Amino acid sequence: SRSYVIDAIPGDGIGVDVTDVAMQCVDAVAGIYGFGVQWRVRDWNSDLYRKAGRMMPVDGIDQLSSGDGIYLGAVGTPDVPDDVTLWGLLIPIRREFDQYINLRPMRLLPGVVGAMPGIGDLDIVVVRENVEGEYSQIGGRFGAGTDGEFAVQESVFTRRGIARAARYAATAATERGGRLVSATKSNGIIHTMPFWDEVVAETVKEFPGVVVEKVLIDALAARLVMKPTSIRTIVASNLFGDILSDLVAGVAGSIGIAPSANLNPERRHPSMFEPVHGSAPDIAGKGIANPVGALWAAAMMLDHLGEAEAARSLTSAFEGTLADGTATPDLKGTATTAEFAAAVLSRLS
Amino acid sequence: SRSYVIDAIPGDGIGVDVTDVAMQCVDAVAGIYGFGVQWRVRDWNSDLYRKAGRMMPVDGIDQLSSGDGIYLGAVGTPDVPDDVTLWGLLIPIRREFDQYINLRPMRLLPGVVGAMPGIGDLDIVVVRENVEGEYSQIGGRFGAGTDGEFAVQESVFTRRGIARAARYAATAATERGGRLVSATKSNGIIHTMPFWDEVVAETVKEFPGVVVEKVLIDALAARLVMKPTSIRTIVASNLFGDILSDLVAGVAGSIGIAPSANLNPERRHPSMFEPVHGSAPDIAGKGIANPVGALWAAAMMLDHLGEAEAARSLTSAFEGTLADGTATPDLKGTATTAEFAAAVLSRLS
Ligand SMILES: CC(C)[C@H](C(=O)O)[C@@H](O)C(=O)O
Ligand SMILES: CC(C)[C@H](C(=O)O)[C@@H](O)C(=O)O
Repeated sequence: SRSYVIDAIPGDGIGVDVTDVAMQCVDAVAGIYGFGVQWRVRDWNSDLYRKAGRMMPVDGIDQLSSGDGIYLGAVGTPDVPDDVTLWGLLIPIRREFDQYINLRPMRLLPGVVGAMPGIGDLDIVVVRENVEGEYSQIGGRFGAGTDGEFAVQESVFTRRGIARAARYAATAATERGGRLVSATKSNGIIHTMPFWDEVVAETVKEFPGVVVEKVLIDALAARLVMKPTSIRTIVASNLFGDILSDLVAGVAGSIGIAPSANLNPERRHPSMFEPVHGSAPDIAGKGIANPVGALWAAAMMLDHLGEAEAARSLTSAFEGTLADGTATPDLKGTATTAEFAAAVLSRLS
Repeated sequence: SRSYVIDAIPGDGIGVDVTDVAMQCVDAVAGIYGFGVQWRVRDWNSDLYRKAGRMMPVDGIDQLSSGDGIYLGAVGTPDVPDDVTLWGLLIPIRREFDQYINLRPMRLLPGVVGAMPGIGDLDIVVVRENVEGEYSQIGGRFGAGTDGEFAVQESVFTRRGIARAARYAATAATERGGRLVSATKSNGIIHTMPFWDEVVAETVKEFPGVVVEKVLIDALAARLVMKPTSIRTIVASNLFGDILSDLVAGVAGSIGIAPSANLNPERRHPSMFEPVHGSAPDIAGKGIANPVGALWAAAMMLDHLGEAEAARSLTSAFEGTLADGTATPDLKGTATTAEFAAAVLSRLS
């Protein structure tokens, strides 16, 4: 029978709480649909860093490469600098496995009150370029400690990198009404953005049913607040996609519900699935983290593995639970993480 | 009697409509408060570019330097690349006159329906660093036209540049409850942002009454949608400030109401005042542009000139007009630009 090897990295803070619950729900749905999931749970987190000086073993990437997918909770903790936790784990996984698409869908979920009225049919997919752009390794400081100190960061956009993100986004847009919004900032001084516009426009020409609308990032942020349902599919650079996807999650009611798939679309390497939220040290261990983002990410993973029915079933289960009025405090409910998960499990069985 | 020389650059599109109206209202309020405004109206815009190949004369900056302030409508037109219109006019003015603060206040104005309910006491000031950061001259393309083509853009943050923005913002925060939100992205790979955090933190130490809360730009975008009234004062880099100020205007109901002051706080050079909105070619010439952003920017100019009472009077006049239910279509009203302005003028007299 079908079986998948998944590396689970619960990580830090509420990452642990939501991963725990998500693994249970995935196991339940796997049982129903007749496949197995073999979890390799990794203790790669800030504790390991404190003990061993590394977020993951030297051969961590190698270890992951034999699996069918990676499931991440969240990383980050107040006493370790974020660049250590993220550069030690999250970013290398995204890059070494060429997970060049970060897919971030959002809908107004049943039972959830969005930030503003009249957005019942909110349904947005952000296709974020995930391995280049504003997040490059090139940069640093000059004259540390002096009055003349300065820091630089180089954004790097390649034709290939933009084109493949645009291609993925255009394919997504084809099934989503054909209109693709490209987030840009080509009206000023940022030399990379007219290049972004050009390559997006050229690439989308390959897709007869798709029309690109380029929208300046500042205007787009405002439009997502004023007319969020006027947008279905967005293609954005690494930084812009990061900002926009959190913004859209805010519009839909909570960052706690937002999922994220870091995809290597050609499947040469494992892809990684994670909720958008961070480790949230302020509520870690309180048992009140919203597991919806994690469950939705798990459903995206099942879909990626080819288990579309199981993915739909898991999605219906958490949506049904929300529709029933069961929700964690971030959604103004009173359920704990465990209570929410129990309701999802009982819907599955 | 007191008199000020103001260079008015109506620019393109609706910039012309709103500047026209704003000058009338400023003249009216000046008459009441006993000072004069000598307008030097400049035809520096895309038409000039089409005729003369320049957005402003070779000695444009010199010409402006003798004035007491600059009032700009908007620049940009579909058939001229934005980098031409902006690099030929807006950006050089900001830089040559070292207008290193871009001040962007926003409130929920009377009579205006915000994007979401319960934000009646929305009152946010974005202090945007305005001459460095992500908007640097350094960048370009390599291998144009080849498969290996790439483009780079260098962000440059200096200690001095961050510190003076933080100092201005901390001063503003002192009078606004003491809490200063610093927009950052220091949790990843962007080398400049930990430096931003450090210099902001050090600088704000000089202000005993001010507490800095650093918030990641992605989380901040979501928070501005979910809890906009939890934030009063924001300090942000050039790009982040650009995005956040449009977002906040969207939350408050329309980009058409948002003002912007490009300040040289030491008054060594003239400062520039402009609405945040662009030239909006789609509605240019239709007489329906919202003049509130322009009027609010004019009030900020009066305040900067030392005419605080006149500034307050102009502000009350456009607020009163809105409170009466007079509003342009972007605010779901039916007034034209001229009707709105007439109502403001009749309140002033
Ligand atoms: C026109 C553009 C270059 C400008 C900017 O990004 O600074 C505008 O969006 C603004 O905010 O004034
Ligand atoms: C943690 C951080 C580096 C990361 C990012 O910006 O990519 C996060 O915000 C995300 O969106 O996954």
